[in-house]
Amino acid sequence: MVSKAVADRVAKIASEMGYARSSLAYGLRTGRTCTVGVVIPDLTNPLFPPIIRQIESTLADHGYIVVIADSDNDQGKEMEIVQSLKARNVDGLILATAHREDSVVNACIDDDIPLILVNRTIDSHLVTAVINDDNHGIELAVSHLVELGHKSIAYLGGPQDTSTGHDRFQAFKKMQRKGTFKSHNELILNCKAFTEPEGHRGFLSILDKNRKFTAVVAANDMLALGCYDAMEEVGLNCPADISVTGFNDMPFMNRLSPPLTSLRIAHREIGDQAAKFLLQRIQDPESPIKTVNQLPELVVRGSTASPKSR
Amino acid sequence: MVSKAVADRVAKIASEMGYARSSLAYGLRTGRTCTVGVVIPDLTNPLFPPIIRQIESTLADHGYIVVIADSDNDQGKEMEIVQSLKARNVDGLILATAHREDSVVNACIDDDIPLILVNRTIDSHLVTAVINDDNHGIELAVSHLVELGHKSIAYLGGPQDTSTGHDRFQAFKKMQRKGTFKSHNELILNCKAFTEPEGHRGFLSILDKNRKFTAVVAANDMLALGCYDAMEEVGLNCPADISVTGFNDMPFMNRLSPPLTSLRIAHREIGDQAAKFLLQRIQDPESPIKTVNQLPELVVRGSTASPKSR
Repeated sequence: MVSKAVADRVAKIASEMGYARSSLAYGLRTGRTCTVGVVIPDLTNPLFPPIIRQIESTLADHGYIVVIADSDNDQGKEMEIVQSLKARNVDGLILATAHREDSVVNACIDDDIPLILVNRTIDSHLVTAVINDDNHGIELAVSHLVELGHKSIAYLGGPQDTSTGHDRFQAFKKMQRKGTFKSHNELILNCKAFTEPEGHRGFLSILDKNRKFTAVVAANDMLALGCYDAMEEVGLNCPADISVTGFNDMPFMNRLSPPLTSLRIAHREIGDQAAKFLLQRIQDPESPIKTVNQLPELVVRGSTASPKSR
Repeated sequence: MVSKAVADRVAKIASEMGYARSSLAYGLRTGRTCTVGVVIPDLTNPLFPPIIRQIESTLADHGYIVVIADSDNDQGKEMEIVQSLKARNVDGLILATAHREDSVVNACIDDDIPLILVNRTIDSHLVTAVINDDNHGIELAVSHLVELGHKSIAYLGGPQDTSTGHDRFQAFKKMQRKGTFKSHNELILNCKAFTEPEGHRGFLSILDKNRKFTAVVAANDMLALGCYDAMEEVGLNCPADISVTGFNDMPFMNRLSPPLTSLRIAHREIGDQAAKFLLQRIQDPESPIKTVNQLPELVVRGSTASPKSR
């Protein structure tokens, strides 16, 4: 429209006069806001900050900033947040809140908004997801306990409408069918949420029905912390009476009393890959959809030991 | 411009056709984006998530959403972030990153952008800040140790270019001058950052010069965790050999081995007040500037005990 010399002169004078580019105007003109929305269940769950830091860092390298919002695991609230982010013209979304059947995710698919899932995925696998190999993780935890000599192992699972809750539970049942240890329905409980209070309640509920187990596999660290609380309450010692394993290896789990045996997940890789796949989909909405499974690693600490006879 | 009936009919049809309000267009028309930027040093420092949750929650009640960014305690990066947020026309900023003399804060003052500081403030007190009563906190920690019988107390402080580092250090020196315990220059060290590695380094550095102290007051929990590491490394027991106090009472500090005696800060009140003061300044840029001091509360746990003779 104008020569480069004129454009440069205008830009120079504008800058000297203290004008800066308005992202609003730029956004209206280009349709891009260089802003990405990240929705998580709860920022105070230490699982998420290290993943988000890496998402921020990778996106910042490409000039994007991140808007973070908490859904409190409430699908109604999540829908409101996503509407609000879309109204703010975010260029894409990363959701750590997916349920196996998820109306919010479906609405995003219908809207064609670039979308990546982290930590959890949906049953239809219609969206690119960067998750943990939950099956492998539970295999590692159970094998570790069996090697220590545990014969009777309880399982405290998560909500079955999430892929993490579902896949970890299925992995435990698969290990159980192999027959290297005993468990039965009384020793298996899926909690309503991945929270400390649910872990506390669930542990006591199992203990109430059957006291013959010497180890419990918790489907995440928050549930494992709930087990710690319940054991302290009823005077059981970890690991002397009951060994406990977690999942995620959140910050500070190595400093607990006792330090928690857990599955370390690849926070940085998960965040980095999620960010990169999102940038890819923003550039090319037809880029292939895939599910990437990151392998967790067992970190053995003081919460697991050989069973003593009780 | 048009009658309410017509406006309502247009809105209804637009909604039926799947149109949603564009925040970009709304922002250009009203000059408001209903977006607030929150800048923190590091999201993985567990001090911040509970404060941010409350900021989000209070602002959401007023239709605002929050953009979070990490500065890594780097003033250059902080300036970039603030520029980027301003280019995105945020309606206001909450900074948890202030230094006592802070060019980024000064630039925001010059720009007249609504601004609130949390956790730390600036020496000039030209911006409304919601902080802790750092002096009161250190008084509580020192008095607790003196009551337990400690006569020789070390102090591991934070960077002196932050109000938290400075005010806590001044509070310790004030208590020292009262003469109820002994300390001297060899037992006092201000670290370069509020981090675990700095706490570790600082503790060993004090120990290297003088081994006669029985307690250490750390200026925050991260420094206290560094003391834990250093003590484990050199074979000292907490609290049998040396008692340790922290500041902030971050999540999980009650679960450490040993559980950390710390100063519980009013996360929710701090977040809530910061959000409300910011809304006030967005509505009325002439609203009064003030510094609000929240009183921390001492939580006594297993990391402090009477000194044994060594």
